[in-house]
Amino acid sequence: MYFDSHIHTDGLGFSELKKLNDAGVTKVCSPSFYPVRPNYPQTMIDVFRKLTEFEVDRCKLAGIEMYPAVGIHPRCIPPNFELVLEYLESRDWIAFGEIGLEDLTETEMDVLERQLRIAMEKDIPCVIHTPRKNKRDATKATLRILEKINFPEDLAVIDHTNFDNLDLVIKSGYWIGLTVQPGKLSVNEVVRIVRENGVERFMLNSDAGYKDMQFTSVPDAARELEKAIGIEGRKIYYENASKFFRV
Amino acid sequence: MYFDSHIHTDGLGFSELKKLNDAGVTKVCSPSFYPVRPNYPQTMIDVFRKLTEFEVDRCKLAGIEMYPAVGIHPRCIPPNFELVLEYLESRDWIAFGEIGLEDLTETEMDVLERQLRIAMEKDIPCVIHTPRKNKRDATKATLRILEKINFPEDLAVIDHTNFDNLDLVIKSGYWIGLTVQPGKLSVNEVVRIVRENGVERFMLNSDAGYKDMQFTSVPDAARELEKAIGIEGRKIYYENASKFFRV
Repeated sequence: MYFDSHIHTDGLGFSELKKLNDAGVTKVCSPSFYPVRPNYPQTMIDVFRKLTEFEVDRCKLAGIEMYPAVGIHPRCIPPNFELVLEYLESRDWIAFGEIGLEDLTETEMDVLERQLRIAMEKDIPCVIHTPRKNKRDATKATLRILEKINFPEDLAVIDHTNFDNLDLVIKSGYWIGLTVQPGKLSVNEVVRIVRENGVERFMLNSDAGYKDMQFTSVPDAARELEKAIGIEGRKIYYENASKFFRV
Repeated sequence: MYFDSHIHTDGLGFSELKKLNDAGVTKVCSPSFYPVRPNYPQTMIDVFRKLTEFEVDRCKLAGIEMYPAVGIHPRCIPPNFELVLEYLESRDWIAFGEIGLEDLTETEMDVLERQLRIAMEKDIPCVIHTPRKNKRDATKATLRILEKINFPEDLAVIDHTNFDNLDLVIKSGYWIGLTVQPGKLSVNEVVRIVRENGVERFMLNSDAGYKDMQFTSVPDAARELEKAIGIEGRKIYYENASKFFRV
């Protein structure tokens, strides 16, 4: 049984969800994303409704328990985003995500900080994206915001961590998301990271969706991990995510 | 080479799009739909942007020429839908769809008629949905609206036609969409319909997406059709759709 801590189920078809389940994935967190920057804040509210109402049921039909994460991705910040923040503040959620920084603009930092403050106030775990470009600078800026507001260590996972920013995230004390996907991490790199740093603070994910062929990369990596480090691997492909998302 | 005249590509994953292309599908029409009724009209505008901007490119990456159809599905009518109608009127489009009736409410009939009037004025082909339940009554009501406004015969396809409403649609003069999907038509039923009525006015589709496993039902049906009626079958799995969508 595997837990993919970050996969965009709304970018996957039904036969893919079934294959994911056939490969042993029983739990996933599916964070909010919209593939074009919305022209309207209202769109994000309906994106959250689609994810929490329709998409949870669709995953269940394929045998997968899906935990939706809602929030404004830095590439999805609409005009008048305050409306979205008010909506996020007004309800209960399992998790926020993916939130974070992409181009390190003032607006992105403002939107991230305000979502983090809501999460703190409401005790909501946050999936925090780090970008492909400027990963190190973006991670530093993200950690500065987290530290500025004294964000609790157990309430954030810094995701898509790789060798560009691993030292910073390890120093920080937050959870660490490892994404196995072409262009992100290979299975061998994950094995190396875990061998050097232990399994306690890591969780594995595929970030698959929309344009990705390798949506079963968590079970694929998990098998290799077990060969390399034994049953301890279960922490990073199941237990840590269960603990973080409290499910 | 096959043309699926109605498939929800945004409900399919990338490996499914690739398989669709591997099975010989090179052209599709992907009509607008949102799996929960939107709370805001703005959401539909961003749905059209996603479909025409992002989704066309994603399909191209999988080798598929995708023609987007925009419009308000009867199950997706938001409050203040006038905003969506104004947006539809203000731009150029390849096709409208899927539009039509589901529960035959006054609002549905109003939204359908107003979209049809815009389509007439702008000369836009329309993919018209007929529902599973009340198919015969919904088809009658749809045809009454089309006839009332003298909607051109070559500008509408009455879709998901089956034995409940086939006689009505044949009498009408509009194009006829045949959907091969469990719960809709079987390949044998399509063969029977085409044997009895010729190939001139039909076009084949899968209506696949979101919860469907059988996304290659057009190539699957096409092979059986060729066995049954020979190369003439090409009209209904390629040529008629090309003509209707003018591509």
